[in-house]
Amino acid sequence: MSTLIFGHKSPDTDAITSAITFAQYEKLSGNTDVEGVALGTPNDETKYALDFFKVEAPRVITKAAPETDTVELVDHNEAQQSVDDRAEVTIAKVIDHHRVANFETAAPLYMNIQPLGSCQSIIYGMYQDAGFEITPTTAGLMASGLISDTLLLKSPTTTARDKQIFAELQQIAGIDLSEYGLNMLKAGTNLAARTDKDLIDGDAKTFDMNGTKVRVAQINTVDLNEIYARQDAIEAAMQAEVDADGYGLFLTVATDILNSNSVGIALGATDKVEAAFGKQFDANKRMDLPGVVSRKKQVVPQLTAAF
Amino acid sequence: MSTLIFGHKSPDTDAITSAITFAQYEKLSGNTDVEGVALGTPNDETKYALDFFKVEAPRVITKAAPETDTVELVDHNEAQQSVDDRAEVTIAKVIDHHRVANFETAAPLYMNIQPLGSCQSIIYGMYQDAGFEITPTTAGLMASGLISDTLLLKSPTTTARDKQIFAELQQIAGIDLSEYGLNMLKAGTNLAARTDKDLIDGDAKTFDMNGTKVRVAQINTVDLNEIYARQDAIEAAMQAEVDADGYGLFLTVATDILNSNSVGIALGATDKVEAAFGKQFDANKRMDLPGVVSRKKQVVPQLTAAF
Repeated sequence: MSTLIFGHKSPDTDAITSAITFAQYEKLSGNTDVEGVALGTPNDETKYALDFFKVEAPRVITKAAPETDTVELVDHNEAQQSVDDRAEVTIAKVIDHHRVANFETAAPLYMNIQPLGSCQSIIYGMYQDAGFEITPTTAGLMASGLISDTLLLKSPTTTARDKQIFAELQQIAGIDLSEYGLNMLKAGTNLAARTDKDLIDGDAKTFDMNGTKVRVAQINTVDLNEIYARQDAIEAAMQAEVDADGYGLFLTVATDILNSNSVGIALGATDKVEAAFGKQFDANKRMDLPGVVSRKKQVVPQLTAAF
Repeated sequence: MSTLIFGHKSPDTDAITSAITFAQYEKLSGNTDVEGVALGTPNDETKYALDFFKVEAPRVITKAAPETDTVELVDHNEAQQSVDDRAEVTIAKVIDHHRVANFETAAPLYMNIQPLGSCQSIIYGMYQDAGFEITPTTAGLMASGLISDTLLLKSPTTTARDKQIFAELQQIAGIDLSEYGLNMLKAGTNLAARTDKDLIDGDAKTFDMNGTKVRVAQINTVDLNEIYARQDAIEAAMQAEVDADGYGLFLTVATDILNSNSVGIALGATDKVEAAFGKQFDANKRMDLPGVVSRKKQVVPQLTAAF
């Protein structure tokens, strides 16, 4: 009955690769009966990273309790972002870099939460503290999570420590991580090949904000016109999820990763979005969000305050 | 506007001394504008420790927001155990060894939670990782928190790591920590000098258990007969607090620290206590709890399950 290690639903590159590197960390620590899994299949960006480093995608699970009594969480802590039957298992460890909410245990546990740019940054530090070897492949996976979450160190979530870690990973990786990183990010922006529903599901998280169920999706692109061209269809896909899942607000943030700007499109409590950012949606039902690239730092706290 | 660092209400020795040693850690880290404070005055045991090592008791605060916008928590995380106006300030860090519950932040933070015997065990590790000097006085304070919370390494919360830390602190402290520790624990059991209300307030915590407000007090003694002799008066003091504060259950656990046994006395939902431990209160309204010395490990999870 292996301990299962996994990141959040709608997994991004940091969630998937952190489960892999932290499972390896546990094995190096002597906790050999662990398995890194995932709550969804890799997105295009993550597929690019896994293919590049020739690492298999983790097995996808939808429930934990049928196969284990113990789990370890990476890159998330909130219940609604985690496995559906989490209440039935014991959470032994949490490694995360998000706010803490909707999280409760019956007994003491191990939590390593740090306000860094990626979960992989924390795991890198744990390898360092333990004196574990970081192979070029592990360094590549760690860098992939860090690059993905910080948009190549451009997001305001990027700390001095993240930049230092990136430089240290560069020494180990044996490839040009900046060049690799841009290719990886671009691989995740092949929007034409994806359905509208996939666009808004690919990197989306649900939050409870003062009793309202809020969904915040983020779509990375190298050309915002690709979003504008299919805005009606994207809104229809959002409306379908609002109807099915009862979101009081569905905000999609489309982010131009080359110019570090975003545009918001919202359904439901759009007044809360306007209050959060102190501006109105325009005639095209879009809100320019200049300089906004981080859902965690530049969207969720502002929305939380508005609610 | 200093960042305030404090442990839980009704502070015990680990709560008080952890605020002192972690404030010192922050100063050594370059975060000089911090102050270790407390949410209550030291109990007799803690007074013995502070007097022994010639360290001043931390200033007592009842609110944080009038003097700061940022706090750091040691030895607790649950809202009801923390400063009353916590919602008005930002929690930047949490160092703790308890279950996590009733804790929520708007933004990412630093949390170092480990299932060790004391909060000081975690802080000791942080000093080690950072390469900070541990003076004999600091070692004495760290040992005092560890000894208090683990009843001199006898509690089932004691881990192999705690024993190792105790041995390392023994190397630094320059005194016989086992002898000192027994004297410190005995200093906390001078029950005759304390009022009934003080006995049940001295080391008490409030928990929300499935909607019920549960108070669990612990009284350390070297002779349980001292408790039996004043049981009626203790129950009257408990009843007064039940009436005033609306507890659905008030459980007092009197612990014989020499023989590592406890006796429970309860008001309110006594059926939950009986369910938790699978036995009945006796004709004297007492429940023998052989081998029980840890509220955190041997009482709270069992009660939580019963509720």
